Amino acid sequence: MPVGTQATVKGLTQRDLAEELDVRILLANTYHLFLRPGHELVRRMGGLHRFMSWPRAILTDSGGYQVFSLSDLRKITDDGVTFQSHLDGDRHVFTPESTVEVQMALGSDVMMVLDECPEYPVSHEYARESMERTVRWARRAFAHWRAKAAGDQSLFPIVQGSMFADLRRECAERLVELAADGYAIGGLSVGEPRPLSFEMVEATEPFLPRERPRYAMGVGMAEELAEYVARGVDMMDCVLPSRNARNGYLFTSQGRLIIKHTRYKEDARPIDENCGCYTCRNYSRAYLRHLYQAGEMLYAVLATRHNIRRYLDIMREIRQAILLGQFPEYLRTVRAVPVEVE
Amino acid sequence: MPVGTQATVKGLTQRDLAEELDVRILLANTYHLFLRPGHELVRRMGGLHRFMSWPRAILTDSGGYQVFSLSDLRKITDDGVTFQSHLDGDRHVFTPESTVEVQMALGSDVMMVLDECPEYPVSHEYARESMERTVRWARRAFAHWRAKAAGDQSLFPIVQGSMFADLRRECAERLVELAADGYAIGGLSVGEPRPLSFEMVEATEPFLPRERPRYAMGVGMAEELAEYVARGVDMMDCVLPSRNARNGYLFTSQGRLIIKHTRYKEDARPIDENCGCYTCRNYSRAYLRHLYQAGEMLYAVLATRHNIRRYLDIMREIRQAILLGQFPEYLRTVRAVPVEVE
Repeated sequence: MPVGTQATVKGLTQRDLAEELDVRILLANTYHLFLRPGHELVRRMGGLHRFMSWPRAILTDSGGYQVFSLSDLRKITDDGVTFQSHLDGDRHVFTPESTVEVQMALGSDVMMVLDECPEYPVSHEYARESMERTVRWARRAFAHWRAKAAGDQSLFPIVQGSMFADLRRECAERLVELAADGYAIGGLSVGEPRPLSFEMVEATEPFLPRERPRYAMGVGMAEELAEYVARGVDMMDCVLPSRNARNGYLFTSQGRLIIKHTRYKEDARPIDENCGCYTCRNYSRAYLRHLYQAGEMLYAVLATRHNIRRYLDIMREIRQAILLGQFPEYLRTVRAVPVEVE
Repeated sequence: MPVGTQATVKGLTQRDLAEELDVRILLANTYHLFLRPGHELVRRMGGLHRFMSWPRAILTDSGGYQVFSLSDLRKITDDGVTFQSHLDGDRHVFTPESTVEVQMALGSDVMMVLDECPEYPVSHEYARESMERTVRWARRAFAHWRAKAAGDQSLFPIVQGSMFADLRRECAERLVELAADGYAIGGLSVGEPRPLSFEMVEATEPFLPRERPRYAMGVGMAEELAEYVARGVDMMDCVLPSRNARNGYLFTSQGRLIIKHTRYKEDARPIDENCGCYTCRNYSRAYLRHLYQAGEMLYAVLATRHNIRRYLDIMREIRQAILLGQFPEYLRTVRAVPVEVE
């Protein structure tokens, strides 16, 4: 899922996303939209789909992760979390019920429960306490959703438990009792070494129902997507393809390409000769490097388009390999690609 | 002509420009491209059209205006102008011959001669001296072009003379001897009051051949386009539609709209209900205001698209009115539109 934090994937029009890249689902951030322009405004404008002119599915997170990573002076109680806006310092409260309300106003297709996303590392004791709160919050969110929601919006609970396999298992087992449409694995990519992220997915996955989507939140690098799928993950979201694009890192079938390097100064080839995106069909590395060096907005527009296409292509390759029964071979091929273009 | 200073119209892809907006000709800046990425690099990459993937016409200015407005420590002699790059302080020389060479390397369809663009105000004495240098430079540029150019690139001389009608006339009469494919009127929009700009065009136009395009450089505001056409101008370029778009000023058939105003916060209407651009077909003022307030790149992308479409629509309306013999009525209608949307 490409990330459209503030109701926009940076630099791309909705037509680029839907018609050209064939994006089926976008992620938008409840925390950001709650603060600006405000969920009630979005509701009055006909919901997020209409507001941002997006014809396909939208998943909204609960805002929990942003409260913990962006806002100041947050205070967690069993009732919910009090925090100050990173925009203007105003004080707000998120509860399991209120974040469902906010997402109902936004009208997203998949809503997420409020969770606590602990930093890394934390003690087993704190991780347990936090995990148990996350489970209690999930139950409250589901009770509220069952009483209030119209039924066309799904709600996913989020497995937490920091980097402790026993807590991950316990959390998953308890959340499965909610019989949700899908399950998320949260609390990853918070600074832990990558093998530990994989280990936590492995510790969680066996306890989630196979027939429901499993969503690993906030992962991963291009070369990691197949690794997560190999561990049972169906959905991922990550700002990396768009953020890395803006910072000059382009993903290709031959590894990562750093566009500012002098070697691309007069390189007439596209970013990736195996890519069919608009950028690769029309522009050279030399032109993209020029735009990057000149600080031109068109660089970000073209680079983001390419990187998102690359991520979607990887997911298409993975689906194809699975359908053909060749996923293990595919995974070996992916692991043999160097990180950087040679 | 939309302005693509550094071989890009900020935020728009070449497909947006050619296929959606039907832009026929773009302006690119010789000064900027000479400094970065360098005209020899562009030549080696197959010329500017190929480098920037632009299938239609390109006009390049001579770099003279930028030397006078952007660079430090410029020194004008009869031979040419010595200046320091605004990027790295390196010293360079532009001569009438070298700027033709640079534009030949870029491969633009319409090249401009090196001219001196005096600031405003200057004395009649300085304006005469400067105008005479501009005429001498134009003659040298034409001699060089006739000896060297392949024939598929036009070269336009530039009428100068500051705000003195006698000098404008004298300059035009002398430049017409060059029998060029078209003629530019330069030295406008340098800080003079608008009636004076119009007056200088009126003082110049009768002395330029009617059957050749007349190009007023660096003008104008949306409401001024018809005024320039009424004074005999065929071509204009201006950064205003794109720069104003980025700064929150949107041009509509009802006047200018300032998107940040609170009154647009929940306004579900498009920027201009009479506009058929992609932005107006798909997005509300409320969404654009949200993107603007959030500092989102998509705002600039969508706003630029709209403003350029508005400028092109105005030029289409003008052509239509002329063909129907209704230009005087059209001009009256335009003059009755308030500057700001009411």
